[in-house]
Amino acid sequence: MVVGIVGLGLMGGSMGLALKGIGEVSRVVGYDHNPEHRETALEHGLVDAVVTWEELKRCDVIFLAIPVEGIIKALGELEDVDAETTIIDLGSTKAKIVRNIPPSIRKNVVPAHPMTGTEKFGPDAAVANLYRDKIVVLCNIDESGERQRITAYTIFEAIGMKVVTMDAEEHDRHAAYISHLPHAISYALANAVLAQEDADSILILAAGGFKDMSRLAKSSPIMWEEIFKQNRDNLLEAMDHFEEELRLCRKLINDSDWKGVRTWMEEAKKLHDIL
Amino acid sequence: MVVGIVGLGLMGGSMGLALKGIGEVSRVVGYDHNPEHRETALEHGLVDAVVTWEELKRCDVIFLAIPVEGIIKALGELEDVDAETTIIDLGSTKAKIVRNIPPSIRKNVVPAHPMTGTEKFGPDAAVANLYRDKIVVLCNIDESGERQRITAYTIFEAIGMKVVTMDAEEHDRHAAYISHLPHAISYALANAVLAQEDADSILILAAGGFKDMSRLAKSSPIMWEEIFKQNRDNLLEAMDHFEEELRLCRKLINDSDWKGVRTWMEEAKKLHDIL
Repeated sequence: MVVGIVGLGLMGGSMGLALKGIGEVSRVVGYDHNPEHRETALEHGLVDAVVTWEELKRCDVIFLAIPVEGIIKALGELEDVDAETTIIDLGSTKAKIVRNIPPSIRKNVVPAHPMTGTEKFGPDAAVANLYRDKIVVLCNIDESGERQRITAYTIFEAIGMKVVTMDAEEHDRHAAYISHLPHAISYALANAVLAQEDADSILILAAGGFKDMSRLAKSSPIMWEEIFKQNRDNLLEAMDHFEEELRLCRKLINDSDWKGVRTWMEEAKKLHDIL
Repeated sequence: MVVGIVGLGLMGGSMGLALKGIGEVSRVVGYDHNPEHRETALEHGLVDAVVTWEELKRCDVIFLAIPVEGIIKALGELEDVDAETTIIDLGSTKAKIVRNIPPSIRKNVVPAHPMTGTEKFGPDAAVANLYRDKIVVLCNIDESGERQRITAYTIFEAIGMKVVTMDAEEHDRHAAYISHLPHAISYALANAVLAQEDADSILILAAGGFKDMSRLAKSSPIMWEEIFKQNRDNLLEAMDHFEEELRLCRKLINDSDWKGVRTWMEEAKKLHDIL
């Protein structure tokens, strides 16, 4: 089959590289509105060729690896694809995207969220093993056509992913905690340090722990603005729960209740029995 | 010289391994109140021998690699060391420790904070390269004796560290932002997720970003309880500034001010131009 990838950044470019080793895929082509990205993608061999939108629409499988608002727009421009075409979107939010799939191509679309990524973006960030051994969530999969479901499973499993299925609303609630809240926290931590008069002196001391906690704050603001927008209500709820925990911690410290602080920390450590 | 290490966990055990390759050091001995730690340290070759407290006191250099409250207690039990002995404490807080050095051994002591570590603890966590290419902060170094200053510089540079000097109060203010606040945040994030009814389903989706953000919440509660206690006021202030940023982010999201959200994120990204 011929696969077309819309968006040749970290996710799309890495998908191009991952698909190279797959027997089922005869050719991978790419589409990107950014001329520099198109050029870099070809230079790095992320795709075999760059195509026009009309050519892209004739691919057997179309991946949408662009920011989440762009995915909704692109779906509107794919209404005339063949009934056998599989469209897989890789957006980090799912409910609003699912609600906005044009009914005429509902069976064509498989809404997917690969639980992987890095804080880097653009075609230079693409790596061949980004998807290997990671989880991909397929949402509302009963509404996709059988052919499209099988195609999506075949591709994701061929590139080494573990497929999990979930309702889109449930996905968005979970993603708020596991991904969107950590990004908000990381940006807030970075800003809290930068707002200090002696930020430079503070950062001289930065070691692994701080670097890990602030790494997500390198992520693309354009991309994350749209994710926060689409998952606003779930994110606000997750932020409330996090702030509640932080307030409890602050109160225990303020009250010099050290036994309470320790118990609270021991509670948190249980996370890693599950993870 | 003969070096003695009090506390054969991650920091002390790794120091033992690091000192093995150093020409200036003829022998490394260890002290730990936990019999299992003593045994494991010997098995792993972290130290050449385990000694009694009386033997330890006769070492040329004594490292205190124990929780910060224990450091203060240990300093009180080292009042009768030789005038030439160098005592280096590796505590994560410095002001309270400096204030509690018995005046009779003030020149013996070099208060140090190596900006390194992992969330692991105990002698099994010790690694030979924990200190290499990392920063160590020496505090109120003018109050240490010349011999002790030279000894501390010699050892830290020999194991590949970059020495930075700082006032203990300043260190504690900075450490609150760069290390203690990130730990509080990580514990709070872990607890916020665990408090959800469907914590297990949420954690199935955990990828690199969440794992990085929650990694510090694996750290030893006993150790961190004492650090929070000793740096209470600075930590509360850092928490306030962080919460302020998070509240701002929450308000922008709540108001659907997406341009504001993006600007706020772009501000945070500047961190990595410095870091």
